[in-house]
Amino acid sequence: MTVVPKGYRFAAVAASFKKPGKLDLGLAVSEVPAMAAGVYTTNLFQAAPVLECKRLAPGPVRAVLVNSGQANACTGEEGVLNCREVCGLTAGVAGLPEGSVLPASTGVIGMQLKMDRWREAMPDLKAALVGPSDPEAFARAMMTTDTFPKIASAEAKLAGGTVRLVGMAKGSGMICPNMATLLTFVFCDAEADAEWWQGAVRRAAGLSFNRITVDGDTSTNDTLLALANGASGVEARTRADRGALENALYDVCRELAYLIVRDAEGGTKVARIRVTGALTNTEAEVVARAVGHSPLVKTALFGGDANWGRVVAAVGRSGAQFEPENLVLRFGDVVAFEHGTPAGTDAQELEELLAPLFADKDVLIQVDLGAGEGEYELLTSDLSRDYVSINADYRT
Amino acid sequence: MTVVPKGYRFAAVAASFKKPGKLDLGLAVSEVPAMAAGVYTTNLFQAAPVLECKRLAPGPVRAVLVNSGQANACTGEEGVLNCREVCGLTAGVAGLPEGSVLPASTGVIGMQLKMDRWREAMPDLKAALVGPSDPEAFARAMMTTDTFPKIASAEAKLAGGTVRLVGMAKGSGMICPNMATLLTFVFCDAEADAEWWQGAVRRAAGLSFNRITVDGDTSTNDTLLALANGASGVEARTRADRGALENALYDVCRELAYLIVRDAEGGTKVARIRVTGALTNTEAEVVARAVGHSPLVKTALFGGDANWGRVVAAVGRSGAQFEPENLVLRFGDVVAFEHGTPAGTDAQELEELLAPLFADKDVLIQVDLGAGEGEYELLTSDLSRDYVSINADYRT
Repeated sequence: MTVVPKGYRFAAVAASFKKPGKLDLGLAVSEVPAMAAGVYTTNLFQAAPVLECKRLAPGPVRAVLVNSGQANACTGEEGVLNCREVCGLTAGVAGLPEGSVLPASTGVIGMQLKMDRWREAMPDLKAALVGPSDPEAFARAMMTTDTFPKIASAEAKLAGGTVRLVGMAKGSGMICPNMATLLTFVFCDAEADAEWWQGAVRRAAGLSFNRITVDGDTSTNDTLLALANGASGVEARTRADRGALENALYDVCRELAYLIVRDAEGGTKVARIRVTGALTNTEAEVVARAVGHSPLVKTALFGGDANWGRVVAAVGRSGAQFEPENLVLRFGDVVAFEHGTPAGTDAQELEELLAPLFADKDVLIQVDLGAGEGEYELLTSDLSRDYVSINADYRT
Repeated sequence: MTVVPKGYRFAAVAASFKKPGKLDLGLAVSEVPAMAAGVYTTNLFQAAPVLECKRLAPGPVRAVLVNSGQANACTGEEGVLNCREVCGLTAGVAGLPEGSVLPASTGVIGMQLKMDRWREAMPDLKAALVGPSDPEAFARAMMTTDTFPKIASAEAKLAGGTVRLVGMAKGSGMICPNMATLLTFVFCDAEADAEWWQGAVRRAAGLSFNRITVDGDTSTNDTLLALANGASGVEARTRADRGALENALYDVCRELAYLIVRDAEGGTKVARIRVTGALTNTEAEVVARAVGHSPLVKTALFGGDANWGRVVAAVGRSGAQFEPENLVLRFGDVVAFEHGTPAGTDAQELEELLAPLFADKDVLIQVDLGAGEGEYELLTSDLSRDYVSINADYRT
């Protein structure tokens, strides 16, 4: 069941950025100033709303404004001015101070915001803010090719009492976050110090969103924003309290990261690639990404084909250092390849052991390089005909 | 028209490694010892035939033996012994000395050679060798998901007379050669010194096969072998002669590399990604590969969608260093993006300029980073529903 933190209101309207009648403009307002921490894309082309968030956070804010249908990326100075204008319009109808609204956008790259539609949507947005708070509508307003809204929540028991977090994420394509994911917002009612909160959010991103991939394409708009408004009256100050809150934050981020891969464009499976025994953690990551990005591995997953040779080939070309004879490859707990040869003596028998594992919606691929102590885990999706259809026809 | 060098015989038979009745076993025999040079995959898992070739070349050989249907990769010591045995059987029926046959295999990874079928095929192979020489049958015998045999030839005029080269390649998936391509054989009737010939072959691979990608997956079996048997009676000894022969070798390799991308699994388009103005050639390559491997760029190419924002996003996440405002992106000669914003003032007009370029079978993508003198060019294919179908169902 979704837990909702105190002191936030969620609203969304249809502004015709996407097809008419679809929710595409969401607003989350904190009743009191909330400490905001952000983690953003490392793409050199950063969208206008990313630049605006970096200007305002970490620091106290009052609202998060999100739209789908237009990414406002690669739009130059005009894009930044448009972004500031829509934040100002929103602050006006919501009765908030200037510079207290964090913006985020997702959609087609290279198109300017449709300013007339933004202006026309403002009365509706004002009306929605006085209706019942609707976290799911907010999550729906940021969907593009997503097939379901992604929400996760958690509670943490601190010394002063219980605090709550709720997070919303979007994303199913152009997913290969590097320091953040496409769009994720976490709202928390604890009171948190700016510097510690920023660090906790960065660590949570590193262990969740930065460990998933759909297509290896890092977006221009990736943004993770986390707000802590203190409305619970509980402060996270001691080491124990901070640990408890950070663990709850991890739980929310990990669940959202999983949901993004579960909803991968055209995806039917989630593969967890667990690499151990690498010389370093970095080499383990290199191996996990070589396997997780391999179109041949991803199409085999889609086809339910236990074609383990493609995993071995991807590990072998990854660039990581290890002795080929020391590699052990397992699917689930079934050994497929070790000592440089297929496991067991009977190819047909191995095939029959592996087939049911590849029929499952969740597939565990375990690669042990036998070279050291380095580890990494990456979630990836399969590659389907529908991924191609969705992305060949995205703008039509 | 295909030019055939002197002193070689080409034959092929159907050995039921693939579907019965399909050519899947090819043999090229040189009437006299030929100097062999080889370039191989850098995948840590090297197939048994790759290990055998590395043992025998560079050096004088008499034949190249190729099969499709079984890759003999990840098959351990048993795979190596099987490989030597089939080379020995072939030397026997062809009347060649032991250790003079270079093997190459392509097909499913992780399956042992079907030795009974190899033995059964030997009488047919012996009979085929006394029939008319058939270079195209040899090229067909190494096809897997290829839709046409790939042959290219050239002549070079040296001081002593004219020499001829013919090359055959296979490959349409698991294509991202790194120091060689899937399987390519070049036969030349010039006489060439071992050390120079090996260097020339390596340089030709670097400028041709190492600059193509279909899916970013480097195979375990990549092999380029080039034989020079001297049957023309012309030796490449002077600097001018070697230059002329090396240029002819480039021409053959470049043509075969293009044909591989043209025949990419499920592919409908070839995109030439030309990166200039990078800080270094290495950074130019990093950018070209980020664009050329991007599933989002490749699906847009398939859909004929001039979605240039995806190219900009891929360049931005590549890791290369440049100022975003200095990037100029062109399709053909049409500027799509510069000064950090879409080119021109009218998005619709830009769309109409770009649309016909994306409808073509060959698309030129020009990325100028404005940071230095580094350059790189990469050929890539589009990503289609058929690529997914071919690879989801490859073994069924």
